[in-house]
Amino acid sequence: MYRLDEIEEIKFINHLISGFKKSPLQMNRIHTSDSEIIMLDGMDKLVAITTDGISEEIELNIFTDPYLIGWMVVLMNLSDLAAVGAEPIGLLLNQTFEKTVGSDFINALQLGISDACKSADTFILGGDTNFSSHFNFCATAIGLTNGKQYLSRIGMHEGDILYSTSRLGIGNAFAFSRIFVNGRNEIKYLPKPQFDKSKIISRFAASCIDSSDGLFASLDQLIRLNKSGITLFGEISLIICEDAKEICRMYDIPEWLMLAGPVGEYELIFSIPQNRENEFLKSAEKVNWQPVKLGIAVEKPELFIQNKSKLSSVNTAKIRNLSALLYSNPTQFLVELINIYEESF
Amino acid sequence: MYRLDEIEEIKFINHLISGFKKSPLQMNRIHTSDSEIIMLDGMDKLVAITTDGISEEIELNIFTDPYLIGWMVVLMNLSDLAAVGAEPIGLLLNQTFEKTVGSDFINALQLGISDACKSADTFILGGDTNFSSHFNFCATAIGLTNGKQYLSRIGMHEGDILYSTSRLGIGNAFAFSRIFVNGRNEIKYLPKPQFDKSKIISRFAASCIDSSDGLFASLDQLIRLNKSGITLFGEISLIICEDAKEICRMYDIPEWLMLAGPVGEYELIFSIPQNRENEFLKSAEKVNWQPVKLGIAVEKPELFIQNKSKLSSVNTAKIRNLSALLYSNPTQFLVELINIYEESF
Repeated sequence: MYRLDEIEEIKFINHLISGFKKSPLQMNRIHTSDSEIIMLDGMDKLVAITTDGISEEIELNIFTDPYLIGWMVVLMNLSDLAAVGAEPIGLLLNQTFEKTVGSDFINALQLGISDACKSADTFILGGDTNFSSHFNFCATAIGLTNGKQYLSRIGMHEGDILYSTSRLGIGNAFAFSRIFVNGRNEIKYLPKPQFDKSKIISRFAASCIDSSDGLFASLDQLIRLNKSGITLFGEISLIICEDAKEICRMYDIPEWLMLAGPVGEYELIFSIPQNRENEFLKSAEKVNWQPVKLGIAVEKPELFIQNKSKLSSVNTAKIRNLSALLYSNPTQFLVELINIYEESF
Repeated sequence: MYRLDEIEEIKFINHLISGFKKSPLQMNRIHTSDSEIIMLDGMDKLVAITTDGISEEIELNIFTDPYLIGWMVVLMNLSDLAAVGAEPIGLLLNQTFEKTVGSDFINALQLGISDACKSADTFILGGDTNFSSHFNFCATAIGLTNGKQYLSRIGMHEGDILYSTSRLGIGNAFAFSRIFVNGRNEIKYLPKPQFDKSKIISRFAASCIDSSDGLFASLDQLIRLNKSGITLFGEISLIICEDAKEICRMYDIPEWLMLAGPVGEYELIFSIPQNRENEFLKSAEKVNWQPVKLGIAVEKPELFIQNKSKLSSVNTAKIRNLSALLYSNPTQFLVELINIYEESF
């Protein structure tokens, strides 16, 4: 129960790395933090480094706008730095263009990259460019922590309060509108890096992860790693954003889907020990930030959600393992997800 | 004459980055070193970071063996660290697998990765895994220089002696055997990282670059960046390896092609000021290394080659710009290359 390798993706990655040796300079274990953490001799900070690319969302036509693709590849890497409490030094790009690529596509892509860097006061340090029959784009970000501490996914304890940097669901709302209603609802999706909030979170949080694969995937990962469960407080409508609510109303789908789907909003999800909560909230208030209270860590390692006065356990492993289906058959994916929803309540 | 942007690839990259701002922490300018060089506050070393992937060689079936692909993606990144005089901390992988990928392919690929890491006493630190309709694989390597110096492509002066870590041509010999004779000649191609030699080179060299795109591309880059030319000494057969010679004999092609083709051997190509040459050679001898003397830096910024007692200038821009043709029409590429050879002599 609640083993990491119940998740197909984790099992696959564990197989990939089974013959690799771990560096003695590496502080984190696999799966336990959003970036890799390296301790270098004589440095009073830790190096954080992470790599991430987009394939699936492009093939599924969720991301078609080259500006958005450029922005997202930078953002998803910066988000992994923010989730460990690091600030960026810069990024390297790895771009494989189609031989027939046009200059409009390239210009918009590079503008998205450049604007995403500016939004975090960071830089492209270098890269590699190739040509192929298929477009492929990934990046690597490097950063430094503030001192020798870093935010890890490990550390959540029973009684900790779970927070998100902002309301959730915009990624899944955007994906729904792109896949199922052909983008007719113009959802604005352009996640911002969370470095300012990450600095505050670093001072108080026991654990942190970004919501790059949607809320449930993040919570499931925290639950598996910490062997504690999470109970979400109250109504889902209190933690999802207006655009996500609007999509649910218009297409008569449960708001729950906006948290269960795998397209993330790149907020930070973190747990604060109860005895630090007041101090944390005061620090947030000083910068006019209202963190969104999600729930509480509980003993039994499952995700519990209140719906119409009933508390139900959600099969988050099944949900995460469904994601592969999204990219082959989105309609069946949605049907299966709604089935899990109906089983749960 | 001899401007960097005569080279199509460089012109394209300059366009890609035209809207990007340079980090104040970055020591190198674009195109001037094999890795990006970052100076961090309070560190007595420089961070070197580089990213590189394979697409073209896979699409052209030059690289088909998954073990070789795994090895090469690690090696080509490590080679860029060695070329700036850095030692590796580790690598991050970015792997996009086909949905139908088999476990034999994966196991061989990962073994190649792992063995290449072992050959340099380094580690995979992390990575990202995606699925798509097409295989794509790149990596990022991070390392540290020894002190605050790094090897740059800039610094070659007239009179400097040009060296290579070993004899050349194995990459083009391998590619020739794979493309034109269907791999019937079993050329062993598995370049090794040059960290031991790079340590010695760092102490003496005025400039350094790896031969990842073949010798002529490396020399052309040094010539353009330093606005000095290079005259190769004597016969080509003295600087190419036995396997390359054998391929030339068997298929009656000029040995010159083994230096002109774009598939590299990942040796280091470097210039030593004449007044340091004796000391350099003594240091090399101590570790039983015989560097291969290639030529001398001259005033006129062109590449000159001696052939049958005639000294000719080689149009290296034309050769480099031909490379795009290799990946669409290898036979025409070879014909064009032989035309350039015949024009030259």
